Amino acid sequence: MTQITFWYDFASTYSYLAAMRVEDVASKSGVEVNWQPFLLGPIFVAQGWTDSPFNIYEAKGKYMWRDMARLAEDQGLPFKRPEAFPQNSLLACRVACLGRDQGWGADFTRATYAAQFGQGRTIATSEDLAPVLDDLGLNSADVLAQATSPDGKLALRHSTDAAIAAGVFGAPSFTTPDGELFWGSDRLEQAVTWAAAHSG
Amino acid sequence: MTQITFWYDFASTYSYLAAMRVEDVASKSGVEVNWQPFLLGPIFVAQGWTDSPFNIYEAKGKYMWRDMARLAEDQGLPFKRPEAFPQNSLLACRVACLGRDQGWGADFTRATYAAQFGQGRTIATSEDLAPVLDDLGLNSADVLAQATSPDGKLALRHSTDAAIAAGVFGAPSFTTPDGELFWGSDRLEQAVTWAAAHSG
Repeated sequence: MTQITFWYDFASTYSYLAAMRVEDVASKSGVEVNWQPFLLGPIFVAQGWTDSPFNIYEAKGKYMWRDMARLAEDQGLPFKRPEAFPQNSLLACRVACLGRDQGWGADFTRATYAAQFGQGRTIATSEDLAPVLDDLGLNSADVLAQATSPDGKLALRHSTDAAIAAGVFGAPSFTTPDGELFWGSDRLEQAVTWAAAHSG
Repeated sequence: MTQITFWYDFASTYSYLAAMRVEDVASKSGVEVNWQPFLLGPIFVAQGWTDSPFNIYEAKGKYMWRDMARLAEDQGLPFKRPEAFPQNSLLACRVACLGRDQGWGADFTRATYAAQFGQGRTIATSEDLAPVLDDLGLNSADVLAQATSPDGKLALRHSTDAAIAAGVFGAPSFTTPDGELFWGSDRLEQAVTWAAAHSG
């Protein structure tokens, strides 16, 4: 089955829009989704940014929040801007890596985005994430211990290295088996169409 | 008739894609297009950029050229990357302002984008633009003199000020009479749908 890789970071607003529809869009074209959390931070630092570009560039930031509200409404998604932005996504990305390897990564990702941008909740700490994990029927204490173990930390580092190697410079991004890169939730359909047309 | 304002600068690659289809997309929804050339340069300088962000951020630049090639093919448009990027768009933007006021702005804009990104030609100088103007049946010497007169220069400055006042931070952008801003060629349909739904 043809696959697209969906690259996301919980600090990325537009990744919320992509996460909530990527499975629907892909499955309609017979394409499978490979969920890949990664950290945008090191990539932004390499570009000279020590904060979100939406905070650094005021007009762009103002636009992004309005754009997100409009697009969420079009998608029928709740949208609430969290008080702090961006939130530290390190722990959530580590947990998502573990979930990817254990088969609950997509569910955790959707639940965490819904908490953060659907309800405006904080998602940075163990206390924030434990109820999300518990609601999924997971043992949150156990999951959080595994995600922050040396192996758990390494998994996210490998994922971020793989993102950089794939040319990823923002989130969400999509890559296809033949090496094409698509950036932005608004490129999801194009990425899936490309993957379906260039499979095998 | 409801209107959208289409903000563009000839230094913007994605504005080529928008310029070639904005009239088609808008007219299908009964929306009129107000063509507004402006200068991105001063806006980028205010953001701390003294070059195109596609040159400053290497991965983003590499992506943009590939993305442009794919999208131009989807639109059935020829695409050839000019040797130098970005080109100085000051003169072409001044000419486009004059054309806007004299009724040939859209035709000049499409012809200049087609020359620059369809054929990879230079568009920075009077020598570059004269044949484009002559092909449109205009008196190029006369047009270039008017466009670079004090009034001609002022017209573009006013247009750029209006872009900044509208919150424009990149090109292409679209604004609606009720004050919504949409950024990117991929937002054209959304902008037109918004304008049509919120008219009167």
